Amino acid sequence: MSSSTFRTEKDLLGSLDVPSEAYYGIQTLRAMHNFQLSGIPLFHFPHLVSALAMVKWAAAKANHHLGYLSDEKHSAIIKACKRITQGEFHDQFLVDMIQGGAGTSTNMNANEVIANIALEELGYAKGDYHHLHPNNDVNMAQSTNDAYPTAIRVGLLLGYDHLLASLTKLCESFAKKGKEFAHVLKMGRTQLQDAVPMTLGQEFHAFSTTLTEDVNRIRLLIPDLLCEVNLGGTAIGTGINADPQYPALAVKYLAEISGHPLLPARDLIEATSDMGAFVLLSGMLKRTAVKLSKICNDLRLLSSGPRTGINEINLPPRQPGSSIMPGKVNPVIPEAVNQVVFTIIGNDLAVTLAAEGGQLQLNVMEPLIAYKTFGSITLLIRAMDMLRELCIDGITANAEHCRDLVEHSIGLITALNPYIGYENATRIARKALETGKGVLELVREEKLLSEKDLEEILKPENMIGPHQILRNLINH
Amino acid sequence: MSSSTFRTEKDLLGSLDVPSEAYYGIQTLRAMHNFQLSGIPLFHFPHLVSALAMVKWAAAKANHHLGYLSDEKHSAIIKACKRITQGEFHDQFLVDMIQGGAGTSTNMNANEVIANIALEELGYAKGDYHHLHPNNDVNMAQSTNDAYPTAIRVGLLLGYDHLLASLTKLCESFAKKGKEFAHVLKMGRTQLQDAVPMTLGQEFHAFSTTLTEDVNRIRLLIPDLLCEVNLGGTAIGTGINADPQYPALAVKYLAEISGHPLLPARDLIEATSDMGAFVLLSGMLKRTAVKLSKICNDLRLLSSGPRTGINEINLPPRQPGSSIMPGKVNPVIPEAVNQVVFTIIGNDLAVTLAAEGGQLQLNVMEPLIAYKTFGSITLLIRAMDMLRELCIDGITANAEHCRDLVEHSIGLITALNPYIGYENATRIARKALETGKGVLELVREEKLLSEKDLEEILKPENMIGPHQILRNLINH
Amino acid sequence: MSSSTFRTEKDLLGSLDVPSEAYYGIQTLRAMHNFQLSGIPLFHFPHLVSALAMVKWAAAKANHHLGYLSDEKHSAIIKACKRITQGEFHDQFLVDMIQGGAGTSTNMNANEVIANIALEELGYAKGDYHHLHPNNDVNMAQSTNDAYPTAIRVGLLLGYDHLLASLTKLCESFAKKGKEFAHVLKMGRTQLQDAVPMTLGQEFHAFSTTLTEDVNRIRLLIPDLLCEVNLGGTAIGTGINADPQYPALAVKYLAEISGHPLLPARDLIEATSDMGAFVLLSGMLKRTAVKLSKICNDLRLLSSGPRTGINEINLPPRQPGSSIMPGKVNPVIPEAVNQVVFTIIGNDLAVTLAAEGGQLQLNVMEPLIAYKTFGSITLLIRAMDMLRELCIDGITANAEHCRDLVEHSIGLITALNPYIGYENATRIARKALETGKGVLELVREEKLLSEKDLEEILKPENMIGPHQILRNLINH
Amino acid sequence: MSSSTFRTEKDLLGSLDVPSEAYYGIQTLRAMHNFQLSGIPLFHFPHLVSALAMVKWAAAKANHHLGYLSDEKHSAIIKACKRITQGEFHDQFLVDMIQGGAGTSTNMNANEVIANIALEELGYAKGDYHHLHPNNDVNMAQSTNDAYPTAIRVGLLLGYDHLLASLTKLCESFAKKGKEFAHVLKMGRTQLQDAVPMTLGQEFHAFSTTLTEDVNRIRLLIPDLLCEVNLGGTAIGTGINADPQYPALAVKYLAEISGHPLLPARDLIEATSDMGAFVLLSGMLKRTAVKLSKICNDLRLLSSGPRTGINEINLPPRQPGSSIMPGKVNPVIPEAVNQVVFTIIGNDLAVTLAAEGGQLQLNVMEPLIAYKTFGSITLLIRAMDMLRELCIDGITANAEHCRDLVEHSIGLITALNPYIGYENATRIARKALETGKGVLELVREEKLLSEKDLEEILKPENMIGPHQILRNLINH
Repeated sequence: MSSSTFRTEKDLLGSLDVPSEAYYGIQTLRAMHNFQLSGIPLFHFPHLVSALAMVKWAAAKANHHLGYLSDEKHSAIIKACKRITQGEFHDQFLVDMIQGGAGTSTNMNANEVIANIALEELGYAKGDYHHLHPNNDVNMAQSTNDAYPTAIRVGLLLGYDHLLASLTKLCESFAKKGKEFAHVLKMGRTQLQDAVPMTLGQEFHAFSTTLTEDVNRIRLLIPDLLCEVNLGGTAIGTGINADPQYPALAVKYLAEISGHPLLPARDLIEATSDMGAFVLLSGMLKRTAVKLSKICNDLRLLSSGPRTGINEINLPPRQPGSSIMPGKVNPVIPEAVNQVVFTIIGNDLAVTLAAEGGQLQLNVMEPLIAYKTFGSITLLIRAMDMLRELCIDGITANAEHCRDLVEHSIGLITALNPYIGYENATRIARKALETGKGVLELVREEKLLSEKDLEEILKPENMIGPHQILRNLINH
Repeated sequence: MSSSTFRTEKDLLGSLDVPSEAYYGIQTLRAMHNFQLSGIPLFHFPHLVSALAMVKWAAAKANHHLGYLSDEKHSAIIKACKRITQGEFHDQFLVDMIQGGAGTSTNMNANEVIANIALEELGYAKGDYHHLHPNNDVNMAQSTNDAYPTAIRVGLLLGYDHLLASLTKLCESFAKKGKEFAHVLKMGRTQLQDAVPMTLGQEFHAFSTTLTEDVNRIRLLIPDLLCEVNLGGTAIGTGINADPQYPALAVKYLAEISGHPLLPARDLIEATSDMGAFVLLSGMLKRTAVKLSKICNDLRLLSSGPRTGINEINLPPRQPGSSIMPGKVNPVIPEAVNQVVFTIIGNDLAVTLAAEGGQLQLNVMEPLIAYKTFGSITLLIRAMDMLRELCIDGITANAEHCRDLVEHSIGLITALNPYIGYENATRIARKALETGKGVLELVREEKLLSEKDLEEILKPENMIGPHQILRNLINH
Repeated sequence: MSSSTFRTEKDLLGSLDVPSEAYYGIQTLRAMHNFQLSGIPLFHFPHLVSALAMVKWAAAKANHHLGYLSDEKHSAIIKACKRITQGEFHDQFLVDMIQGGAGTSTNMNANEVIANIALEELGYAKGDYHHLHPNNDVNMAQSTNDAYPTAIRVGLLLGYDHLLASLTKLCESFAKKGKEFAHVLKMGRTQLQDAVPMTLGQEFHAFSTTLTEDVNRIRLLIPDLLCEVNLGGTAIGTGINADPQYPALAVKYLAEISGHPLLPARDLIEATSDMGAFVLLSGMLKRTAVKLSKICNDLRLLSSGPRTGINEINLPPRQPGSSIMPGKVNPVIPEAVNQVVFTIIGNDLAVTLAAEGGQLQLNVMEPLIAYKTFGSITLLIRAMDMLRELCIDGITANAEHCRDLVEHSIGLITALNPYIGYENATRIARKALETGKGVLELVREEKLLSEKDLEEILKPENMIGPHQILRNLINH
Repeated sequence: MSSSTFRTEKDLLGSLDVPSEAYYGIQTLRAMHNFQLSGIPLFHFPHLVSALAMVKWAAAKANHHLGYLSDEKHSAIIKACKRITQGEFHDQFLVDMIQGGAGTSTNMNANEVIANIALEELGYAKGDYHHLHPNNDVNMAQSTNDAYPTAIRVGLLLGYDHLLASLTKLCESFAKKGKEFAHVLKMGRTQLQDAVPMTLGQEFHAFSTTLTEDVNRIRLLIPDLLCEVNLGGTAIGTGINADPQYPALAVKYLAEISGHPLLPARDLIEATSDMGAFVLLSGMLKRTAVKLSKICNDLRLLSSGPRTGINEINLPPRQPGSSIMPGKVNPVIPEAVNQVVFTIIGNDLAVTLAAEGGQLQLNVMEPLIAYKTFGSITLLIRAMDMLRELCIDGITANAEHCRDLVEHSIGLITALNPYIGYENATRIARKALETGKGVLELVREEKLLSEKDLEEILKPENMIGPHQILRNLINH
C-alpha cells in the first residue's frame, strides 16, 4: 500500500487513483475507504476467498458453454480463479468483513482482482477493462445477490471438515481418558450435592459421547443446510439477465469445482433473501459451544482445590497461576474456552439479529452473517485444539482421593434404598449428617443388613451400572 | 383450594396439612409454597402433564413385568395414569414451571397425584401411602433425573404435530395468495431500493416456500432430537437401583403408550445431563420465528401508506388504528407477531443460559428449559394461527398501483443491461434520476434500442424469470 | 364473561355485541379477539392499570382547566379514574400484554372503561357514548402515542419502591449474616483454586455491599430515566390537536396525582419514539439479576457436599431433595433464582429487540417493552423475597470445617511471600503439593522463619486485612 | 519475532527461550503459546496498555513512599511506565485479548516489559531479574486481581472522551440538518402508516436530541461507574501482603497519573469480584447502539426508492450499488452501522455471560469483559464517524416530493378532528380511501368547514406544533 505510482479508474461516482501494483480496482478502493470497522479484511477467511473464485470460475464456464463468453476471456478468467483457489492473491481481498451493500463490495473485490489477473494473463495492463471487464465479463449473468451468498455457502462447506476434524480429535481424547480412568471409582454429584457412585471413566466417556453426537450431527446438518445455492437467481431470484439454461449449468460446474454436491434452490426468489440456513447453523455451533462450556465448567469444578475443593483430577499446569500467590496453578485453558463460548453465543445473537433484519427481496445484513459464522467456526476450532492439546491429554486422576470421598459420602445410602426402604434410608442419612458418622456404620449399628449382604450390594460393579436387585433382601 | 378440611402428611422435613380433596401431597405443597415465581403452573402445558403420566405408566408396567410391583398396585397405577392422559386431574398439577430441584417437585407432583388416585381406586383414603407409596411404588426404579427429562421429551413429541399443523396451514395460505397474485406485476426491491420486476405472486409464494422448508425440517428434526430418552438411568445414568432389564423394557412400554418411536440413550450418564437436544430445538424454533418476523416486516412495508408509503397490498383491518387519527388502520396483526418473535428469541437465550448452567451429572436448570420450550411452541402456534386467520387470508393487492410503480421505476434499465452494456445503462439511470424522466423515454431518445426490441425485452414474462438473452441485440 | 345479555357498540369497522355488564367496549373486545398470545392480561400489572387512570385523570383536569371539557364530564371522568387507582375495575382491563397497535388497544381499554364508569356516574347506560365519549372526551387531547408511554413510565414509577424494598431487605439479610459469620475464618478462592484466608463474614458482607450498590443506583436511575414524559405530544410529538398550554398543564397535574416529579420532555418528537430509557432500565435490572445469579452460584458452591464438596455453609432444607436418593437436600431456592435470572436476561434481549424495532415517529413494539419490563421487575421481587425468606435467613456456617480447610491449604504460603520471597514460596508450595505435607510444616523444616515470626504473620487479623509488613523479617 | 538469538528465562514450570530483543519474558511467552484465539493482541487497545503502565507507576510510587521499594528501582520503574504511557513499547503487549487466568497473563506481560525496560535503564541486561524482578518489584503489593481490573477501568476512562467526541459531532451534524430542513413540510408516519404532518427538520432534530441525551448520560455514567477501583485489595480484597497505608496511597497516585478522580472501593472483597459496573456500562453502550440502529433504519426508509419508495431524502452515494443493476445507489453506510450495532448487542450478551460467570472471590472471565467493552467502544466510534462523514453531512431533501405527499395524504384529517368530530373524520377518511379522493376535497364537498376555517387550521405552523384550538369552530 506504500505505492508511489497509480492508475486511474472510474465508475458511476467518478474516478480514483488505484495503486499500480494492486489487482483490486476502484470499487474495492471505495469500500476500503468507506468501511473501516472491524479491522478484519476478507483474506482472514481464506475459504471465503477461494469460494468467491470458484463461483466466478463456474459462472465463466457456464457463460462460455452457452456462448456468451469468448474462449479467450473464458480461459483467462478460469486461470485467474484457479490461482486464487490455490492461495495466490489472497492479500488483494481487502474489504472489511463488516460492510454495507449486502456484499457488493466483496463481490466487486473478487470481480476486480480476477479481471486484473486475467488481463495480465492476456497481456494487457491492469485496469484496461475494455479488454475484459469486471462487471460485464467476470460478473456476467451474476448479481452480488446470488454470487455472494453462494460463495458464503461454498466457503463454509470448504471449511467444515476442519471443524469436524478438531471435534473428532477432541472426542478421541476424552474417550481415551474415559478408558484410562475406567477403574477410578468416584462420587457422582447432582445439584452439586453428593449423589451416587460412578467412575471417572464414565464421566470422561460421557464428554466424548456428547461431543461425538455433535460430530455426527454437524456432518449431516451442514451439507444439508448449505448445498442448496441460489446461483442463477441474479438480482432478486427472477434470474433476470441470465439464460434459462444458466442456473443449472453454473451450479453443476460449481459442484464439480468445489467438490461439494451443490444443487440449485427450487425457489430462487425465496433463496435470495432467506437466511434460515445460517440461523440454524449458528444454533448448531452454539449447541456445540454450550456443551464445551459445560465440560469446561466441570473440569474446573473437578480440579478445584487442591486442598479446599473437589480435587478429583489434575489439569496440566500451563503457566504460573498468580502474580502474588506462589505455587498456584489455575485452570487457564478451560477458562479461555468458556470465554470463547460466550463470544460464540454473542455471535449467534448477532447472526439472529442480522437474519431478522432482511427486507423484501434481500437480506442486506449478509456480510455480518458471514463474518460471525466464519468467525465462530474459527474460534471453535482454535478453542478445541487448545483444549485437547494443552489440557485434556494431560489430565491425571487422584484416584485415592476419589475413593475416599465415596467411602465417606452419604450417597452410599441410595444403594441400600431398595433393601431398607426410602424412609429408613432417609432416617439413616439424616442421622449420618447430624452425627458425622458414616452411613454404613449406622446401618451396621442398627443391623439393618447383614455384613454379607452389605458387601454384595456395595460392590463397585453393582453400584456403577444397573444390576439385578437382590429380591431376597427386600424387606419393606 | 378453599378447603376447610385437611389431612396431615409428613416427609423428611416434617409434616404439613394438605387439603382433604387434594390429590397432590406434601411435597407438591412444599413446592407450591417455595416457588411463587412465574405464576404459570404445570397444568398450563397439558402435554407435559400427560407425558408425566405416561412415564409413570410405562415404569409401572416394566416394574410389574419384572416382578417388583404387585398386580394390584400395577393395575391401580396404570388406571390412574390413563385417566390423567385422558385429561382428568390436570388441575392437580400445580407446581410453578420455574422451580429449583431439577424437576423433583414436578416429578413428586406426578407421583403424589397418581398415588392418591390409585389409592382411591384401591379403596383407600388419599394419603394412606403405606398401601401404595408415591416414592416406593409410583416412582419405583426411577429418579427425577430420568423420569422428568423423559417426560419433557415425550411431552414435546405429543405436541409438535399441532405446531406442524399451524405452520402447514400458514404455508397453504401464503401459497394460495401466491396463486391469487400470480399476475400482479410489481417492482422487486433490494436494500429498500428499486431493483427489478417480479410478481406479487412470486413474493407470496416465497413466503410459503420458506416456511414449508421449516415444516419439513421440524418434521425430521424434532423426533430425531427427542426420541432418545434416558429413562432407566435413574439418579445419574448408572441405573442404580434399577434392574438391568428395566431400562429397555420401560422405554419399550413408553414408546407403545406414547405412540412415538422412543429409544434408550446409549450413554445414560451423558443423557442425564446433556441438554443439547433442547438447544438445537430452540434454535430451530428461533429460525422459524425469525422467518415469521421477516415476513411480517415485509407485510408492514408492502402495506405502508396508504398514500405516503409503498401501498402494494392491503391488510384486512382488524381494529380502528388510532385513538386520535380517524380512519387510520394499522398492521396490528403482523406487529403482534413481531413481538411474539422477540419473546421467542429471548426464550432461546434463556434456554441457552440454562443449558450452559448444567454441572457435573445433572442440569438443574431443566425446569426453565421445559418452560421456555413449551412456551415458545405455544406462542408460535398462537401467533401463526392469528396471522393466518386475521391477516394473510384477507390480504388484497393494489394491482394497478403495483404496475404503475414498475413503469416509472429506474430498475427497468437492468433488463436492458445485456443489450446496451453496464456503462450505458448506468448513464441512462443517472440521467433519469437527474431529469425525472423515465428510463425507457431516454433509451428511446438516444435510440439505443429499436421499439420492437424494447417491446420484446420488456415483456413481463421475460423479466420475471430467466430467459434466452437475445444475442442478436447484444451490441457491447 | 358468561353474560347472556349484550349491548351493541359500533366503530369504524362495524358493530359487535359487548356483554351488558362489561365496562370495556367494542375496541377492547376486538383486541381480546385479535390478541390471544401471552395469556397475560393488563390487570396482571396493577400499577400499569392505575397509571393509565392517572393519565386520563390528569388529561381531564387539563382539558377542563383550559375550557374544553365541561364541569360535568370532568367530574365524572375523574371520579372514574380515582376508583380505578383505588383498585376497582381492574378486572375490566383484559387486553393481552402482547398486542399490535402500539398500545392503542390498551389505551382504548382505559378510555372505554373510564367512559362507562363515568356514564353510570352521570346516570346514563353503559355504551351511551353520545353523552360522554371514550375518544372525544376521555382521550381528549391525547393520542395512544403519548398517553400510553406516559402510563408505562408512571406505572413503573409507582412500583419501583416495592423493588427497592425487596432489594433492601435482602441486603439487610446478607449484612446480618455478614456480622453473624464475622469470626468464621475460611479460605478465599479464586478461579476455584485455594487462594488466601478471609472470613465468611467478609464474604456475606460483600453480597450485601454489591446489592446495596444497586439499591442506590436504582433509586437514582429509575426516576432519572422515567420522569420525563411525552404527554401532550399527541400523535407524533407535534402536539397536533392539543392546546399549547395543555402539555405543561397535563404533566403538572399528572405529577400531583401520581406523586412523582414528572416533567414534560423537551423534544416531544424524539420522546414519542425513543425507547432508550427502557433499554437502560432493563440493563440495570439485568445487572441486579446477574449479581443475584453470581451470589446464588456461590451459595450453591459453598454449600456443596455435604461430604464431597466445599460444605462451608448449610442452606436451610426446603423440601426433600430427591425422589430416589434418601436424605439428599438440594439448594432448590438458589437454583430457582438462577432460572429467574436467565428469564430476566432473556427479557432484556426482548426489550432490546423491541427498542431496535422502532420506525420513524413511533415504536410500535412498546407493548412488549412494557410486558417484559413489568414482568422482570415482578420476577425480581418474587425471587428476592423467596431467596431472603426461604434461604439466606436460615443459612448456618460449618465454622470448624472452614478453619480446618484454612489450616491444610497451600494458600497460607502467600502470607509468607513478602518474608521468604516469591521463588522460595513457590518452591515450598510445589513441595507441599507433591508430598502432601502442609506448607507450614515445610517452612519449619527448612527453618525459613522462626516460630515466633510465623505466629505473628499467621494471626487471622493479619491475614484477613492489610497489615504492616514486618520489615525486619524481609530477607530477600 | 524472527529473532535468531535468545535468552533463557525460567519460572515455576520450567524454562523457555525468549527472543533476545523481546522486552516481554517467559510468562508472556507461555501465554502467547497457550492462547491463540481471537488473534487480537493487547496492543490493539492502546488505552488499556497505557493504563496498565499507570497502575504499575502508581504502585511503585506508593511502595517507594512507604519504604518498600528503593530509590533506584522506583526511578527505573516509573521511567519505564512513563515511556509506555507515551506510546513506546506497545508492540511488546502481545497476549491475546481472550485468555484464561483472569488477566494474569496481561498483568505479567506488563510486569515483564516494565522490568526489562527498567533493567536496561539501570544498565542491566534484559532478563537479569535479580536486579529488578517482575513479581517482587514491579508487581509489589499487587495481585492481578486488583491491578488488572483497575487497569481496565482506567483504560476505559482514558478513552471515553473520544467516544463522547464522536457522539457529540454526530449530534451536531444531525442538529445542523435539523436546521437546514426546518422548512421542509412532510408527513409523519406511525406504524408505517400515514399519520400527521411535521417537518423534516423536526425529524432530524429528534435524532440529535436522542443522541445528545446519550452524550449527557455517558458523560455522567462512565466516571460514576469506573472511578471506584480495587487497587490495594491484592488477591481477594483482603489486602494480604499490602501495607495498610498502601491502598489509599496507590489510588491517590493513580488518580494523579491518570488525571481521573479515582477512589478506593469501600468494600475491597466485593470490588474484587463484582462486574456490575461493566454490565451497566455495556447496557449503556447497547442503548446508544440501539438508537443508532433505529436512526439508520429510518434513514434507509426515508431514502427508499427512488421511484417506488418513500424518497423524502437522498443519501450521498458512496459506491455503485450493484454489480448487475446499473445506476442503483444503496444506503451502504447506514447498513454498515446496523451491522456494527448487531455486533455490539452480541458483545453485550458476551459481557453479561462473563459477568454471570464469576465465582466466589473473583471473576475469571474479566479478560472477555475487557475485550468486548473496549471492542464495542472502538466499533461505536468508527461507526459514528463513518455515519457522520460519509452519510449525514451529505444528506439532501426532496422538499417538493415531501410536500406533495402531505397534500395527498389521508392524515390531514386528524387536524380537522377537533372541529368535525372523530366520527365524521373517520367517515371522511374511509371515503377518501375508497374513492381515491383527497380528504380536503371531501370536506369541501360536504361543506363541513368553510374555506377560511380550513385555511386557518391547515397552516403548517398550526399543524407541526401545538396550537390554540379554534373553539368557535368546534361543532360537535
